[in-house]
Formats: sequence, C-alpha cells, structure tokens
Amino acid sequence: MLTFEGQKIQGSQNIVNKLTSLPFDQCKHTITTVDCQPSGPSGGMLVFVSGNLQLAGEQHALKFSQMFHLMPTPQGSFYVYNDIFRLNYA
Amino acid sequence: MLTFEGQKIQGSQNIVNKLTSLPFDQCKHTITTVDCQPSGPSGGMLVFVSGNLQLAGEQHALKFSQMFHLMPTPQGSFYVYNDIFRLNYA
Repeated sequence: MLTFEGQKIQGSQNIVNKLTSLPFDQCKHTITTVDCQPSGPSGGMLVFVSGNLQLAGEQHALKFSQMFHLMPTPQGSFYVYNDIFRLNYA
Repeated sequence: MLTFEGQKIQGSQNIVNKLTSLPFDQCKHTITTVDCQPSGPSGGMLVFVSGNLQLAGEQHALKFSQMFHLMPTPQGSFYVYNDIFRLNYA
C-alpha cells in the first residue's frame, strides 16, 4: 500500500494508476540519506530515504522523505509492501 | 533498534543511553504529519512522522522525519521495534 502526501492507496494496480497520473513527466531524485533496518521475523527490510526532487521546468528543488517496507518473496527477491511518501515543506 | 542520524544502536539499554546522552535538556516537538500503515502478517504498525524540533535557546526550528515500527505484545500493547530518525537540513 502507498500513502502519498496523506492519500491512502491500496493494491498494485491502484498504485500504478496513481504514480502514472502524477502531473509531471520528469522528476530527478537526488538521495541525501538512506537508512535500513530489518523489520522483524517475517524477513522484511525497512528503508528510509530523504533527498531532493527536481521537477522539469521548476527552479527550486523540493525536499522529501520516503519509507519503504520490503518483504521477501519465495524466489529470494523482495517486493514493496509499504510505501509512505511526504514532501518536507520549508 | 534505533538509527539516529545514521548512527545504528541496538538494544533497549543502549538506546536509552543514547537518548539520555543527547546534548540538550529540552526539546519541543511540533508534529506536522503522521501517516500509519499496517506492516504485515505479524500485526505490526508503521508510523511515519514529520515536523519541527525547537531546542531550548535556539532561535530556529529544525525539521525532522522519523519512522517507528510498532510490534504487538501478547498483552495487547505495542512496543517500538524499529526507530529511524533524520533531520531534514534545508
């Protein structure tokens, strides 16, 4: 599930629809910090990221923080179980 | 476990030692956003917070983001399993 600026979206198709409907075509992410921790007995991983977003045609970068909860698959990979995104307004 | 500005600290006693050794006595938290999601089959809860910190004697507030992973106890309560804290420098 995804929480994007407070909006809650559940299910992979709904999340893809949301992300592809964002009102810009290009967005450059510059990562400032990445922190990881194991999330418990289910073998998941928490990833906490902060950085800057630069939208095409915009002069100023936007600061953001985002966390992902990655869960293991039986094939030895991971998928995104939780995703929370917030802009950090100055 | 706690990741505080990139420093990794494990175990409740070590975390208490870290938090009580921070070089200030008073700190006012102003919460701007709180997002929550269930974290999976183990019954945990992810909490993602952003806001401002005002240290005693400092004129300017510091922006921060922090996430907690709360895990259930058999007594029906929760405890903090993961805690990641970052300041958001402007």
